[in-house]
Amino acid sequence: MKDKHYIEMGFAKYDLKREKIKGFPEVILALGKDEKHLTEIVVKAIKRTKKLLITRVIPEQYAAIKKALAKSKIKIKYYKIANLIYIGEEDKNRIGKITVVCAGTADVPVAEEAALCCEFFGSNVERLYDVGVAGIHRLLNNADVFEGCNSVIVAAGMDGALPSVVGGLISCPLIAVPTSVGYGASFRGLAALLTMLNSCSVGMSVVNIDNGFGAAYQAHLINKMVCK
Amino acid sequence: MKDKHYIEMGFAKYDLKREKIKGFPEVILALGKDEKHLTEIVVKAIKRTKKLLITRVIPEQYAAIKKALAKSKIKIKYYKIANLIYIGEEDKNRIGKITVVCAGTADVPVAEEAALCCEFFGSNVERLYDVGVAGIHRLLNNADVFEGCNSVIVAAGMDGALPSVVGGLISCPLIAVPTSVGYGASFRGLAALLTMLNSCSVGMSVVNIDNGFGAAYQAHLINKMVCK
Amino acid sequence: MKDKHYIEMGFAKYDLKREKIKGFPEVILALGKDEKHLTEIVVKAIKRTKKLLITRVIPEQYAAIKKALAKSKIKIKYYKIANLIYIGEEDKNRIGKITVVCAGTADVPVAEEAALCCEFFGSNVERLYDVGVAGIHRLLNNADVFEGCNSVIVAAGMDGALPSVVGGLISCPLIAVPTSVGYGASFRGLAALLTMLNSCSVGMSVVNIDNGFGAAYQAHLINKMVCK
Amino acid sequence: MKDKHYIEMGFAKYDLKREKIKGFPEVILALGKDEKHLTEIVVKAIKRTKKLLITRVIPEQYAAIKKALAKSKIKIKYYKIANLIYIGEEDKNRIGKITVVCAGTADVPVAEEAALCCEFFGSNVERLYDVGVAGIHRLLNNADVFEGCNSVIVAAGMDGALPSVVGGLISCPLIAVPTSVGYGASFRGLAALLTMLNSCSVGMSVVNIDNGFGAAYQAHLINKMVCK
Amino acid sequence: MKDKHYIEMGFAKYDLKREKIKGFPEVILALGKDEKHLTEIVVKAIKRTKKLLITRVIPEQYAAIKKALAKSKIKIKYYKIANLIYIGEEDKNRIGKITVVCAGTADVPVAEEAALCCEFFGSNVERLYDVGVAGIHRLLNNADVFEGCNSVIVAAGMDGALPSVVGGLISCPLIAVPTSVGYGASFRGLAALLTMLNSCSVGMSVVNIDNGFGAAYQAHLINKMVCK
Amino acid sequence: MKDKHYIEMGFAKYDLKREKIKGFPEVILALGKDEKHLTEIVVKAIKRTKKLLITRVIPEQYAAIKKALAKSKIKIKYYKIANLIYIGEEDKNRIGKITVVCAGTADVPVAEEAALCCEFFGSNVERLYDVGVAGIHRLLNNADVFEGCNSVIVAAGMDGALPSVVGGLISCPLIAVPTSVGYGASFRGLAALLTMLNSCSVGMSVVNIDNGFGAAYQAHLINKMVCK
Amino acid sequence: MKDKHYIEMGFAKYDLKREKIKGFPEVILALGKDEKHLTEIVVKAIKRTKKLLITRVIPEQYAAIKKALAKSKIKIKYYKIANLIYIGEEDKNRIGKITVVCAGTADVPVAEEAALCCEFFGSNVERLYDVGVAGIHRLLNNADVFEGCNSVIVAAGMDGALPSVVGGLISCPLIAVPTSVGYGASFRGLAALLTMLNSCSVGMSVVNIDNGFGAAYQAHLINKMVCK
Amino acid sequence: MKDKHYIEMGFAKYDLKREKIKGFPEVILALGKDEKHLTEIVVKAIKRTKKLLITRVIPEQYAAIKKALAKSKIKIKYYKIANLIYIGEEDKNRIGKITVVCAGTADVPVAEEAALCCEFFGSNVERLYDVGVAGIHRLLNNADVFEGCNSVIVAAGMDGALPSVVGGLISCPLIAVPTSVGYGASFRGLAALLTMLNSCSVGMSVVNIDNGFGAAYQAHLINKMVCK
Repeated sequence: MKDKHYIEMGFAKYDLKREKIKGFPEVILALGKDEKHLTEIVVKAIKRTKKLLITRVIPEQYAAIKKALAKSKIKIKYYKIANLIYIGEEDKNRIGKITVVCAGTADVPVAEEAALCCEFFGSNVERLYDVGVAGIHRLLNNADVFEGCNSVIVAAGMDGALPSVVGGLISCPLIAVPTSVGYGASFRGLAALLTMLNSCSVGMSVVNIDNGFGAAYQAHLINKMVCK
Repeated sequence: MKDKHYIEMGFAKYDLKREKIKGFPEVILALGKDEKHLTEIVVKAIKRTKKLLITRVIPEQYAAIKKALAKSKIKIKYYKIANLIYIGEEDKNRIGKITVVCAGTADVPVAEEAALCCEFFGSNVERLYDVGVAGIHRLLNNADVFEGCNSVIVAAGMDGALPSVVGGLISCPLIAVPTSVGYGASFRGLAALLTMLNSCSVGMSVVNIDNGFGAAYQAHLINKMVCK
Repeated sequence: MKDKHYIEMGFAKYDLKREKIKGFPEVILALGKDEKHLTEIVVKAIKRTKKLLITRVIPEQYAAIKKALAKSKIKIKYYKIANLIYIGEEDKNRIGKITVVCAGTADVPVAEEAALCCEFFGSNVERLYDVGVAGIHRLLNNADVFEGCNSVIVAAGMDGALPSVVGGLISCPLIAVPTSVGYGASFRGLAALLTMLNSCSVGMSVVNIDNGFGAAYQAHLINKMVCK
Repeated sequence: MKDKHYIEMGFAKYDLKREKIKGFPEVILALGKDEKHLTEIVVKAIKRTKKLLITRVIPEQYAAIKKALAKSKIKIKYYKIANLIYIGEEDKNRIGKITVVCAGTADVPVAEEAALCCEFFGSNVERLYDVGVAGIHRLLNNADVFEGCNSVIVAAGMDGALPSVVGGLISCPLIAVPTSVGYGASFRGLAALLTMLNSCSVGMSVVNIDNGFGAAYQAHLINKMVCK
Repeated sequence: MKDKHYIEMGFAKYDLKREKIKGFPEVILALGKDEKHLTEIVVKAIKRTKKLLITRVIPEQYAAIKKALAKSKIKIKYYKIANLIYIGEEDKNRIGKITVVCAGTADVPVAEEAALCCEFFGSNVERLYDVGVAGIHRLLNNADVFEGCNSVIVAAGMDGALPSVVGGLISCPLIAVPTSVGYGASFRGLAALLTMLNSCSVGMSVVNIDNGFGAAYQAHLINKMVCK
Repeated sequence: MKDKHYIEMGFAKYDLKREKIKGFPEVILALGKDEKHLTEIVVKAIKRTKKLLITRVIPEQYAAIKKALAKSKIKIKYYKIANLIYIGEEDKNRIGKITVVCAGTADVPVAEEAALCCEFFGSNVERLYDVGVAGIHRLLNNADVFEGCNSVIVAAGMDGALPSVVGGLISCPLIAVPTSVGYGASFRGLAALLTMLNSCSVGMSVVNIDNGFGAAYQAHLINKMVCK
Repeated sequence: MKDKHYIEMGFAKYDLKREKIKGFPEVILALGKDEKHLTEIVVKAIKRTKKLLITRVIPEQYAAIKKALAKSKIKIKYYKIANLIYIGEEDKNRIGKITVVCAGTADVPVAEEAALCCEFFGSNVERLYDVGVAGIHRLLNNADVFEGCNSVIVAAGMDGALPSVVGGLISCPLIAVPTSVGYGASFRGLAALLTMLNSCSVGMSVVNIDNGFGAAYQAHLINKMVCK
Repeated sequence: MKDKHYIEMGFAKYDLKREKIKGFPEVILALGKDEKHLTEIVVKAIKRTKKLLITRVIPEQYAAIKKALAKSKIKIKYYKIANLIYIGEEDKNRIGKITVVCAGTADVPVAEEAALCCEFFGSNVERLYDVGVAGIHRLLNNADVFEGCNSVIVAAGMDGALPSVVGGLISCPLIAVPTSVGYGASFRGLAALLTMLNSCSVGMSVVNIDNGFGAAYQAHLINKMVCK
């Protein structure tokens, strides 16, 4: 009972055990959090950990966090296209390799969320963007991008067909991320999600719609374990 | 026919019988009500009852009600995070105990709606927030929070898994509240709702998504009957 | 009013105008029809038209029709894998070319429904089966199958990704047919249907789940008009 | 490998092969694209192709593109009701005929997206708007609009019933476009989509909700092949 | 309290008040009822009322009811195609007129459920079957069937488009019945239901999928009130 | 061909036949219509008909119409709570009686859309609002409101249970209108719609979510026919 | 680690802790269990506990269990209509009172599952069946059935409206059970489930479709705690 | 073109390239395959590969395959509870460790499909079954089962909550498999699928409902790569 393994704030309990189990401090999901709650969690957490990753940050939340940390000398960086904040020093000794692929330019925010998270966690990343299956030569011409990687992330909206094709070309695990890109019967990513769950390609699993972060975590764990 | 048991306003009939049957005056749901309609109901109702609870109040509605009651000396209190207005004196002689739990910090508004309503109805409340199952030591370390309680409310969004785990630890009834917290395949609370309806834990029932008030009513009825 | 352009049977009105407009006599959907109703329609219709196509025929219905036509010398043929009956002489002077593709062996019944219908309507057909995107070399190795065709039909269940890839390789119209092949989150063809509706490939449109017949009609109309 | 058949921009790969296969340069879907990404794609692409079509353009995106091309002498035209931008010279030597029909006045934006795209691709178009089935004399009085056409596009929201009726009157292929027009149980076009997928009319296929562009591509391919 | 207005059987309370309010004895829905329960209700009810209608009867239930009533001299009639049982004398003094229409031959069972119920309730009925919109001349050639009718019932599965067209031709109320006829994206009648709810025709309302009985009740009430 | 029975505007065809068939000029649905289109339709239509009803009007559309008609002396009235515009003289010789009921105060806009439309069409209306089933004495105390009416409209959101109860009390046809009032698992009126489609009350049919106008049309047709 | 609080069988771990926490031995859900697995669990469990309840038992499973226990003298009872098996002595010293209500005769199996489970757990039960809201006098005439009860269970299929009405009449907690009774748009209980989740009645919560057992557990816990 | 890398059978193309890429010969999904097609594929494939795995085999298919291979001396083994056939010698030199967990006894078939596949692929497996979260001590007491494993598979139906809890306890990747076990609002596994997609646990991804095979493939790839 001495060490509760979390920071108690009443409305929040920042988990200190997660870093011990998973190797990276608890990541904060900004989405839906009250601004006061969010900033207090950040301020308290950064005292106990050397690096902090916050996902799904909107500009207003970024401004509030920046203001709350203004007096400290803590380095804070906002990746707007990926809606991420990273606080602290980045470890440049990255290991192994993860390939991050996306189907269209509109999928880049999710793909970048995934790619940047992989890098924050400590993996090397190679990117291949806008290689949707409607012009498959763009993918086939770049197949060397998969050489030497330990896991692959594929983000795709609309028909979500890209992971099925990529899965047939590679020998390592693939994490598929449906994105909410599309309109009409895409039902905000549901179509792409179902496509991926029903893929005939083997060695593939799926995360929630737009969950680039989740895909990165899984892909990085695999990469890290292989590199050990 | 003498006493119609309601206040007739044409567009509304404020129910006076509900207090006799349930023990608390009819609670007003502000959601979707025309501002003029809402303020007239409040002004008329407060003349016939000593306390009045209004749920799902947005700041504009609060301002309108405040203005409408400005000349009277009626005490009005707005709980912004829980979107509640309470008018009248609060009874401080609370009875028994209800434990209110939530999975994440973003679920706090719903949990607070539940907790505050329980208190307005006259029950003692103990809170335990941000104890999602992904770091289960936070819940297990705080299991003493359930001691002596007569009912438990658990609010959770995203995977909605917390009530299933809590249900296995306690011996009194549990009311589960799915919240709309999440994104993608959470479908605004549908995922959490389905999780809870399919729980294997016994002694558990479910209310509508984000319905902290409804959970509080049920939990309070149980607490009140046990304390009688 | 003299010629009503249909055969009146009370419970049915066999449409004689359709042949004039579309070039092929009304096709009968056996699905859901009472056996007595079905046989009477067939017996009456075959007197007024030289060829008759019946789709979604189950063996019991085939037996009943066979029995009803036993005394006549009408030639009747049952294609069991495609659930089709064709009555009358087949026109062997077929025109143009339609390519029919399917993703997996379990999609063959739908693909055959499409291919056979195209042939009954009078189009030449080339088939390419079991070329799902998980082993894309099987498709790419056979790309010559599309040479000279005027329309393409692609049937696929599960992830329904094949039409998106084929669409990128060809220059003529593609009709995509989702099939109900799959399990779990394929939701009996819904996943494949959504994939196809959201395809980024251009020059592609979609018919109902398992509707090989409908795809054939559309593909044949195109082929016929081009050959004129 | 010399010619990669696409313009590489990192976040995008503008496909140059598509024009060779399909006969029209890759069309850009503005929806969901970052403004900087979008303008860079347009600027790079227009250097390699003589005409460029951009769909689903909102006024802010139009302004950005206009600004990016301000110094060049490139002719740019914005069709606001259809949310289209066309850059370059239009070919006035149009061929054949496509008839574009819509059910109600609120469907006009989707119908115009289809009609204008057909014209940009090089087909002659005849329009017939606001002929929903609730007043079917409006359609029947105008049946001559289908004379001589090689394909028909029908856009309809709400009950989506119009294509089924039109399909019974014509002998060429029909492409049906469900629109998101409606309320309540129209579920933003889902009702119309299902209606069209289940149509009993033959020679009909369906594209995504509000996908006037996709219908145009399919209809134009047919018209072009017939005219060859 | 003397007259409870229902027959008490523990597991059932046959309602005697309904005949007073609606003019026809409570109709029994056989679907889902235990065979023993069903026969006991029938035996008890027929003692208190002169006519009894039972809907959704499967052959096994008919056999059980027939057996249970074998010793009495009560006349019982089973309409197999419509899954109805009528017990007692039919009133042949029918009033007014209801027109019952259906789109395809597979919709006949639902249309007949509606038509027969109308007749049992005491309305004259005129039928028009198999006039789906894909061959609209069949409907337009028979428009005289609507002359003099006070209400119209239209049953249709698949695309469910027929009521929208009929609604534009008539001046009396129309009750639309979606049927579960179809496959794939008809989702057992859901597609037809949505089509009908979104119809642009006025003077039209909808009942549950396959609910010919419910449509008949509503249509008969209208016819009866007009004839009074 | 002389009289096309509609006013041709290219993007719209205002139907003049509808008044002949149904007895009231074509009603205009403002929802989703371009402002210029809408005002032109109104300006053209009002020249050919003496009264004009426009539904689902938002304030901006009202302002545009008002401006477009400013120079004429045409009387225009905007009913803001019901989102209706009525242009022309109202006929005060109303006939028969329709009772309009709603479950909660938030349902009043839909109920008023229904009630006002009934009055514009020429029916007398009696209103009973805020009588939801949770306090059923409010309904039972007011049962006399149904005396002498020829049809009943019941609007309800959330659980949509009110029509089932009202249906058991009355002997004339009931038109049920689900409203989008509610939150969470109400899914914007879907829950109420399903409740009403599954009602055990007889003599009841349903219109689209929030379609007060459609319910009014049906209810008025019945009332008018009974009064003839 | 000595006492693992469960019986280890490899494919199953019968939980012995549940009785300590909840007061009744772990109840076995037969649904979906392999017959060999099921019988082995029953045989092993009955050695460690004096009473055993098995739910969702089909006749084949009952036969297998009966056979497996044939040599022992253990008393086993099969309640066919409720699909329950109870093994062991029933405690006849029941406490308090729970009222179990159902809407229609087809809901009796679920209501009986609930009622019998309440009795096995040790609560007194009073039943009121077939009191659907379409004939509301049947419910109102029997309102005395709620006197003195500590909790109420209401089972209803189809429109699921009954709990909303009952909830307005009582002052104790209500547990609502949607049943899968119905057809068409009842979607196997989904309609009733949504109705109940959206109820305006307070003091009410909901369990899974057809989950009479779950409702009983919750209702009994309440009754037991009140009686303590 | 010499080596097409697949066995051509017209209706099927058995992929020989997959073994080269993934390390295991193409696995055959028996589901939905015609019996003749299935047996021919098996007979042809086994000539070119030394081991063959067939999933989703029903007893009739097993009998047909057995018969087709009767004359050869090929060893064939049918795992009935997991619906698998394995043909050929099993490699007993298994590597690393995968832990397979399931929530309830009814989930065992899916868990065994996963576990056996892992073993066929060449991984060591440790099993932990029936540790659902409602009695969480069963899981916590067995946490040592995760020691030394390189990946974890968790199968769960109903509420699907188990992977979220397991994910919090382990440091390696977790593959979650929703099962179709449950009833009512489980919607045949949809509820569990959504739960898992929305899990707050990191290092977790999801496969299709009941897809134990797919989870095994992914888990084995990870295990194999770590062991290299």
